[in-house]
Amino acid sequence: MLTDIEIASQVTPKPITEIAADLGIQPDELELYGPYKAKISLSIRDRLKDRPNGKYVVVTAITPTPLGEGKTTVTVGLGQAFGKIGTRAIVAIRQPSLGPVFGIKGGAAGGGYSQIIPMEDFNLHLTGDFHAVTAAHNLCAAFLDNSIYHGNPLDIDQTAVLWRRVMDVNDRTLRDIVIGLGSGNGIPRQTGFDITAASEVMAVLALATDYRDLRERLGRLVVALNRKKEPVTAEDIGVAGAMAALLKDALKPNLLQTLEHTPAIVHAGPFGNIAHGNSSVLADLIGLKLADVVVTEAGFGADLGFEKFCDIKCRVSGLKPDAAVLVATIRALKAHSGRYKIVAGKPLDPGLVTENLDALREGIGNLEKQIENVRRFGVPVVVAINQFPTDTPAEIELVREVALKAGAFDAVPTRVHSEGGEGGADLARAVLRATEEPNSFRPLYELDMPLTDKIEIIARELYGAGSVTYQPAAARALRTFTSMGYDKLPVCMAKTHLSLSGDPNLRGRPEGFELTVREARLSAGAGFIYPIIGEMRTMPGLGSKPGGLNVDIDDDGTIRGLF
Amino acid sequence: MLTDIEIASQVTPKPITEIAADLGIQPDELELYGPYKAKISLSIRDRLKDRPNGKYVVVTAITPTPLGEGKTTVTVGLGQAFGKIGTRAIVAIRQPSLGPVFGIKGGAAGGGYSQIIPMEDFNLHLTGDFHAVTAAHNLCAAFLDNSIYHGNPLDIDQTAVLWRRVMDVNDRTLRDIVIGLGSGNGIPRQTGFDITAASEVMAVLALATDYRDLRERLGRLVVALNRKKEPVTAEDIGVAGAMAALLKDALKPNLLQTLEHTPAIVHAGPFGNIAHGNSSVLADLIGLKLADVVVTEAGFGADLGFEKFCDIKCRVSGLKPDAAVLVATIRALKAHSGRYKIVAGKPLDPGLVTENLDALREGIGNLEKQIENVRRFGVPVVVAINQFPTDTPAEIELVREVALKAGAFDAVPTRVHSEGGEGGADLARAVLRATEEPNSFRPLYELDMPLTDKIEIIARELYGAGSVTYQPAAARALRTFTSMGYDKLPVCMAKTHLSLSGDPNLRGRPEGFELTVREARLSAGAGFIYPIIGEMRTMPGLGSKPGGLNVDIDDDGTIRGLF
Repeated sequence: MLTDIEIASQVTPKPITEIAADLGIQPDELELYGPYKAKISLSIRDRLKDRPNGKYVVVTAITPTPLGEGKTTVTVGLGQAFGKIGTRAIVAIRQPSLGPVFGIKGGAAGGGYSQIIPMEDFNLHLTGDFHAVTAAHNLCAAFLDNSIYHGNPLDIDQTAVLWRRVMDVNDRTLRDIVIGLGSGNGIPRQTGFDITAASEVMAVLALATDYRDLRERLGRLVVALNRKKEPVTAEDIGVAGAMAALLKDALKPNLLQTLEHTPAIVHAGPFGNIAHGNSSVLADLIGLKLADVVVTEAGFGADLGFEKFCDIKCRVSGLKPDAAVLVATIRALKAHSGRYKIVAGKPLDPGLVTENLDALREGIGNLEKQIENVRRFGVPVVVAINQFPTDTPAEIELVREVALKAGAFDAVPTRVHSEGGEGGADLARAVLRATEEPNSFRPLYELDMPLTDKIEIIARELYGAGSVTYQPAAARALRTFTSMGYDKLPVCMAKTHLSLSGDPNLRGRPEGFELTVREARLSAGAGFIYPIIGEMRTMPGLGSKPGGLNVDIDDDGTIRGLF
Repeated sequence: MLTDIEIASQVTPKPITEIAADLGIQPDELELYGPYKAKISLSIRDRLKDRPNGKYVVVTAITPTPLGEGKTTVTVGLGQAFGKIGTRAIVAIRQPSLGPVFGIKGGAAGGGYSQIIPMEDFNLHLTGDFHAVTAAHNLCAAFLDNSIYHGNPLDIDQTAVLWRRVMDVNDRTLRDIVIGLGSGNGIPRQTGFDITAASEVMAVLALATDYRDLRERLGRLVVALNRKKEPVTAEDIGVAGAMAALLKDALKPNLLQTLEHTPAIVHAGPFGNIAHGNSSVLADLIGLKLADVVVTEAGFGADLGFEKFCDIKCRVSGLKPDAAVLVATIRALKAHSGRYKIVAGKPLDPGLVTENLDALREGIGNLEKQIENVRRFGVPVVVAINQFPTDTPAEIELVREVALKAGAFDAVPTRVHSEGGEGGADLARAVLRATEEPNSFRPLYELDMPLTDKIEIIARELYGAGSVTYQPAAARALRTFTSMGYDKLPVCMAKTHLSLSGDPNLRGRPEGFELTVREARLSAGAGFIYPIIGEMRTMPGLGSKPGGLNVDIDDDGTIRGLF
């Protein structure tokens, strides 16, 4: 089979003006960024406000392995598949970070015959939204330290500055730094950089519903505590307006296309680990006015991105999903048996790539649990078996049986990686039928519950935990946030994506475990509290042979080696 | 009179496609970034390679005061004025830094009726070129520290890392920092951030003539020394190709327009203090194929930006200027008497804004010297008297007399700020005549001279220094660069722009002073050595009331308070 880049380079994208015109986007609602990408003006919402929404389909997954289970590929392929069965679809996904593109990870534009193009634009600067987030975030940091330097009128406690800096690069040396050294260079203090996707500004961008909402969320960002332990906000330091100005264009969703010219809205990229890990509310709100179906992707497994989709994103947007697609691979379900170790870049154990019903049976509890998790929200779920050439008919049949028994509306093998949209036509038909099913969508918890109740409902009902314990720092933080009046916010769990539990080594369907909340932090602008389970790394490093070593440019400007 | 933003908001920009079509740019050579800005594809150079160049006019100035003397405004206004007299002109200027936009400075899009529009785009992200430079620069830093972390195969001396990091924000606390603290976060060392405009990558972007040249210059960047004191390059650490990929779009010049719809190419923004301070070579090369006249701006006074224009930029481009415009204000020439202190934001001394021929006579030596400086390169020079309402006929006449006596081809009052292009029509006519004059353009020095000779020729002949002394660090650095084989590079003087000397307090035409070279650094990628005279700040700070405090966004996304 051809490589991703070879497949992508065989397809000439359609002019994005043509993609937009097909959707009924008017020329003055489109801002071109070169021939193949464009921003959609927010004014379109007003024009289309009375049009009924299309069907809203969210793509989630079983608990993934470190290799990923092809969720983006299935999302893109499903969008293409709707085209094959005569249904107008839009794909909505997050923009990938630039940092990891030059690290180990390579591009994140889907794969095989289900990709977003142009893949270089998608993986590099796109239309500059991440850079705008970086600029806005760091302007806030500069204003904060400047306020301390110029007499500290807000009485900021220099040991309680919560706002770090961000950069869209994998750079471990910036995790923990001391700034403000030397004479006249401000007040020294310890701080650090996170990757841009981990910025709360990115989460704000993904959740804001219009300019006013953006501006208000930025104003609410809590950047430090004063010496009375009261929150100091971006509004207090006078930078929220300038941040909003920097994000003016970034708030407009970006229109691209797939290899089969299905429209794709690529917008925002909140870090799944410490934020809600879903693409933007505005992308979905606009997409639903333009297409019969919007296929939107939620990060990681159904215990994480899908839960946050329902409890955080849908609360903000007021939308409800008509169906969910749960992506599973037989390889990953075998790995959930706990018999095999998967390491990115290393060859797979033969037990994962030959018929192995025992391992599959041992690991399939993860699929059952994630189906139950989706059902818990009242949403019909179709399992997409992301089929590999090594999967056998018996294995596929076993997955189907278990899925249906666990409550899935259907379970359909898909071959969108090797066949494009055609390989997902059965899945698309099943999903369409699922959207006609009875739907009793509801969030998992009510906002007026205490924060600890919200955490415990998620932990017990979705993760399968037997109990939740709080380390002193976490308990203290939750009490503080409650006393500050932030207890009505939803919680956004920061947990490993490699297990339903907090321990990445617990595969399958662990039950009755103790979930330990180590810490809890406030994202008052994004509008959630995030309890931290385990270690959360917010600035990746580079390996000894980072992928960027292979990247180069030809004399005509052609980029080589990016993927 | 109306404010800049009020004037700008009264003009509806023409679609940039129309501006481009008028210039004969073909649709496939234009990449739109919204309706009013676009990138010009480098392929246009090939198509137009046999077309003769238009006239090349460079705008320089007397030694400015801290208020600036309206050089950008005259550059923009002169471009507009050519339109009024029926000559097709293009304006070429640098893109301003984002950092100072939120600091004290406000926008840098010209002023009054001579501005680049849309001014918000111009002053904020434009098409993301600065962000691309930031990303490429910091990727290099991350790869460098990563190489040290993973066994240091290049034997980099951690105390001799030359490559800092950059960010496009005014943030004094990042000037001097310690990175790599904590466990697993790399090797601790002291370093810091400069503002993005001060990145050598920005100078490379401004000087590169095509993708191959860009790639080769990036490969030559010296980022550290190894323990044998040999240079380690970006090529050695394997990051030059990835940096070039990140700069792919940034290398394409940006097309905007003025208030009178004169095409403006805005491209690159090298820091005038430590780099060559001129907009890009590619902007001028392309502009000269499209217009009868290209009006390009050089940073600061004729002793700085214009010298570097001739000795660095024109050597790279192979172009020669047909005429120079030297911008002077009567206010500044009075200030050069040394009688008055000008502080940005404070009211002007009455002696500067009422008829004051004595002060003017005392300060006018600066104008004479800067005219001589331009003439020293064999280029005809027209003095543009940037006229203020407080200037009197007698003052203007005095300036004219002195200018002509000093060798100016002409000296013409201009009112482009208050009248737009119409107020510069006389200037445009004079400049056109000057371009027909005999022209014996030549650089100031030959490249095969020793580095110290190059420095001394500039110091004595352009600055008026009596002698040049070298502090030990400077002498040592120059010897080292010579022994490494970098002695054939031009020198790029890093000197205060507020005096012909190295001391910002020496106004007018100081003579016979001693110029002290404190340090010398290598920009092997940009292709120059920069000797440092005095302190050079490469990361600005914010004031106690930074301009960004006034910036905000309306519910419809309109930005307020930016200027």
